[in-house]
Amino acid sequence: MMKVAVIGANGKIGQHLVEQMQHAKTHEVIAVVRKEAQQKALQERGLTAKLADLEGPVSELKSLLKDVDAVVFTAGSGGNTGDDKTLLVDLDGAVKTIEAAEASGVKRFVMVSAWQSNNRENWAEDLRPYYAAKHYADRELMRSKLSWTIVRPGALTDEEATGKVVVGDSLAPGTVPREDVASVLRRCLDENGTEFRAFDLMAGESEVEQSLQSMKEMA
Amino acid sequence: MMKVAVIGANGKIGQHLVEQMQHAKTHEVIAVVRKEAQQKALQERGLTAKLADLEGPVSELKSLLKDVDAVVFTAGSGGNTGDDKTLLVDLDGAVKTIEAAEASGVKRFVMVSAWQSNNRENWAEDLRPYYAAKHYADRELMRSKLSWTIVRPGALTDEEATGKVVVGDSLAPGTVPREDVASVLRRCLDENGTEFRAFDLMAGESEVEQSLQSMKEMA
Repeated sequence: MMKVAVIGANGKIGQHLVEQMQHAKTHEVIAVVRKEAQQKALQERGLTAKLADLEGPVSELKSLLKDVDAVVFTAGSGGNTGDDKTLLVDLDGAVKTIEAAEASGVKRFVMVSAWQSNNRENWAEDLRPYYAAKHYADRELMRSKLSWTIVRPGALTDEEATGKVVVGDSLAPGTVPREDVASVLRRCLDENGTEFRAFDLMAGESEVEQSLQSMKEMA
Repeated sequence: MMKVAVIGANGKIGQHLVEQMQHAKTHEVIAVVRKEAQQKALQERGLTAKLADLEGPVSELKSLLKDVDAVVFTAGSGGNTGDDKTLLVDLDGAVKTIEAAEASGVKRFVMVSAWQSNNRENWAEDLRPYYAAKHYADRELMRSKLSWTIVRPGALTDEEATGKVVVGDSLAPGTVPREDVASVLRRCLDENGTEFRAFDLMAGESEVEQSLQSMKEMA
């Protein structure tokens, strides 16, 4: 059993992930959020919830991650703020969390990225600044001393989970339910062979577990 | 004599640099600009000028840098555009230039950064997104296989050059004329001991050459 900090636990993927983890009881989950009201709501549901400001200093994030074994980073500034926040949260906030994780002795780091963030040629024109932020956060993570996994989902939907996905180095564009993304993130924590891998993720034909295992065979 | 590409040759620092290099004749200069009118104006002054779009593909930048020995990167999106351009030009444009330089066999890369871009604690509140972009571009450069130098000037002024500066790992905030920054960039191309160094730069008491040599002794 690991102590897992979910950064961005109030996000749409984060909410699914925290709920799944609370239900599964495989690991101890710490839900990390930005606002006190969010923290209170999570605590009322019996979860351990902590506050963090991704625009604050690394030292605060380091304290937050004390005794934590694994981090899932699913925070983002979202579509309603400007690209100043894209730079300060999606990029710098992510990298500060990586630095804090390294400094705190965290072993495992699972990053929610975006389809083909590794490949500038596939960045959608109107989302290029967002992709650039994710791209450089991912590059910093890959160079860290953490056991990283980078999950690059396609267009996110609120459809119900199917439990069926496809993963790969370079998938065609598509969609994937947030609830299924959460299942993949959770499974990455337990599946040997997902460390030091970055992959696209879409709705597909295979069970999550089977998809991640097939990736191991591709390695 | 090296063939030196100045990226951002129409910028305020770039203009000084290109003029100084044309006058000094120590190296062959290629002035790289974004607009045809800028290119034409430079050509009319007897300079070799080329067009480049830092938001375009790496392949185009790679062609541009064919047979080039050194790059000085002094391009920036400037204060009149949004942080989307900060991400796409100051960060991604810089890193694409670094990648193109590596792929083209360029040896030397001198980057114009900003005072204390290496140290989040010193980032001015209203310029944090800009600093973040410079910070990550610098990090990518330091990890490249190029012989890099990162110059981090303080607040830039249009005052006349004094020829006197101070450099250091962590200087107090201050100002420096753009014309003096250009002299430092030019001198970095020739001064052994500036490779693999990043330093703050302000107006000061010592000649440019002497300042850069003193840094070598500090190493």
